[in-house]
Amino acid sequence: MRVVNFNAGPSTLPVSVLEAVRDEIVEFDDSGMSIIEMSHRSDTYEAVHFGAADLIRELLAVPDGFDVLFVQGGATMQFGMLPMNLLTGASKGGYVDTGAWASKALADGSHHGEVYAAWTGRDTRYTRVPTVAELSLREGTRYLHLTSNETIGGVQYRAWPDVPVPLVADMSSDFMSRPIPWERFDVVYGGVQKNLAPSGLALVIVRRSILEHTSRELASYFRYDLHASSNSMYNTPPVFPIYVMEKVLRWIRDRGGVAAMAEAAEERAALVYRTIDESDGFYASPVEPTSRSNMNVVFRLADRDLEAAFIAEAARRGLVGLTGHRSVGGVRASIYNAMPMSGVEALCELMDEFRSGTG
Amino acid sequence: MRVVNFNAGPSTLPVSVLEAVRDEIVEFDDSGMSIIEMSHRSDTYEAVHFGAADLIRELLAVPDGFDVLFVQGGATMQFGMLPMNLLTGASKGGYVDTGAWASKALADGSHHGEVYAAWTGRDTRYTRVPTVAELSLREGTRYLHLTSNETIGGVQYRAWPDVPVPLVADMSSDFMSRPIPWERFDVVYGGVQKNLAPSGLALVIVRRSILEHTSRELASYFRYDLHASSNSMYNTPPVFPIYVMEKVLRWIRDRGGVAAMAEAAEERAALVYRTIDESDGFYASPVEPTSRSNMNVVFRLADRDLEAAFIAEAARRGLVGLTGHRSVGGVRASIYNAMPMSGVEALCELMDEFRSGTG
Repeated sequence: MRVVNFNAGPSTLPVSVLEAVRDEIVEFDDSGMSIIEMSHRSDTYEAVHFGAADLIRELLAVPDGFDVLFVQGGATMQFGMLPMNLLTGASKGGYVDTGAWASKALADGSHHGEVYAAWTGRDTRYTRVPTVAELSLREGTRYLHLTSNETIGGVQYRAWPDVPVPLVADMSSDFMSRPIPWERFDVVYGGVQKNLAPSGLALVIVRRSILEHTSRELASYFRYDLHASSNSMYNTPPVFPIYVMEKVLRWIRDRGGVAAMAEAAEERAALVYRTIDESDGFYASPVEPTSRSNMNVVFRLADRDLEAAFIAEAARRGLVGLTGHRSVGGVRASIYNAMPMSGVEALCELMDEFRSGTG
Repeated sequence: MRVVNFNAGPSTLPVSVLEAVRDEIVEFDDSGMSIIEMSHRSDTYEAVHFGAADLIRELLAVPDGFDVLFVQGGATMQFGMLPMNLLTGASKGGYVDTGAWASKALADGSHHGEVYAAWTGRDTRYTRVPTVAELSLREGTRYLHLTSNETIGGVQYRAWPDVPVPLVADMSSDFMSRPIPWERFDVVYGGVQKNLAPSGLALVIVRRSILEHTSRELASYFRYDLHASSNSMYNTPPVFPIYVMEKVLRWIRDRGGVAAMAEAAEERAALVYRTIDESDGFYASPVEPTSRSNMNVVFRLADRDLEAAFIAEAARRGLVGLTGHRSVGGVRASIYNAMPMSGVEALCELMDEFRSGTG
């Protein structure tokens, strides 16, 4: 029986997509073979590959002046690849340290360029994003790096900071759940294994005009310009995640696109936060209201000793994946695009019943 | 109807593996979700992940002193990652240039360390591997890099050169089709999309004792030591290729392991080369007999104008993927582990009939 899957990533996918994969995986499109056995230079695979890229352009309204790249290694590899490509000469990368993922981006970047923290929330336990006034930008800053949503901490930018340098964002855990104001960004990247596809693929969307100034003194796989000029076919792409993503993108389009995803995300998150806020302190969010994520709702029980029982009762009801990240503990409900409202309602019902049964 | 798939990669997989994927892809192992929706930290996924690594150890008789890493980016990314990790201080990498892939490894490596060609077959059109006497090793050479099988040129080492430095090999297109004498190697790597799994994964098998001397001044994803210490779970691994690979590895074990794969590979290749050699020059292999690949059999028709008709007639019979790489033309039959002998027999029957019908 299918459970309600609150995993933080890999995470729930539309069941209709899984069923379509099941029906096609032995033989794709009368080709006499599986999509995963096919040359990536074949017309059949290329239709999927370019179809996926076109859908991303359409759904996120990516302007003509940007390239959509499919790169392996997840967002984690981009922590190195981004400064390798962009920090040429004496330019610097500013990083806003909003939590576990932003910290990793900064630490990894330090090996491949001059980077610095433009702000850190470490001393306040990562409970919010900074205001613009709190950001310290240094002379020669090439970009300001943001982590649009901290999957572990549940902290999200609800608005983009207005700064005089291009933004770069890791959108791994809220890609395709919100529109992107492209005029502000030089690069947007993210792993796809939360809102979009199975693991093994990152999207990197790059402003084309910067490619001629990116480094070419790198092995081919590390070069943004080469992935762009080869349509992400410089070497064999990760066929299966791209193939599944193309189906998920169509599922998103059929349900009304990114605007509809954004609206549904707000509704799901609002219900959980309301249940938290109206619990008389039985449940509490550690995140300041203005920075609360609508993708990863993190909360604690006032009585920490009850958290294990809460998670066990959830599992008994078929609600799984609610354990907070091992680095922070507590409860985390990841409610990505493919999470149905009914799953969130079941969670909130449990929260109310658990509270009244033990309170 | 299922075709006989001679694609060079991605390439044919055992149909029993595809059918097992079909049966499990909506719900895996009574978990209430797909394997591609599951946390990579779950016991259920870990059993698959470690099961795959254990099978690689067992089948390739990997000694305890080596680590088996799962890394994204294919062999192409290793062209950069290898020298980034190994060429610390003043050490150099020697490269044997046996064709298109070896050349790329050398060119990419040059951005991340001091590398040089210890031999090149370019001037003789890449028709063989060198003898040991032909290799020029420089002082301070950290490793000699080999491309065990050139997928495009059809050139393969049938024996490993006996040199006084550790070997490193790209085995992308003959992994798991031959035993590996581990005492000679520091690193063996390769993409899995030919003999083992769908695209999106490279295996990197590293001698553990060298890890403490590899570079750590790198973003996390580029560090061999970090992939090793985290069991290839530093970040989200590419779940689907690992999951399918685990099934292919069991399929290999059930058929007798690597020794049986090696024997079957010899039989398949011998039949095609015999058909070429007994064709009175109608077909010809450009590769010298001692260096002929048993994975990618490359050949030309004496009358080049007949090649398109040959490939078309093959397709009519359900034999597909025989077009030579676009950089060299001609015919290429990729006959990896999952290619049944009956497929090779059908190809050779076609070759004989095509020759007699037009000769």
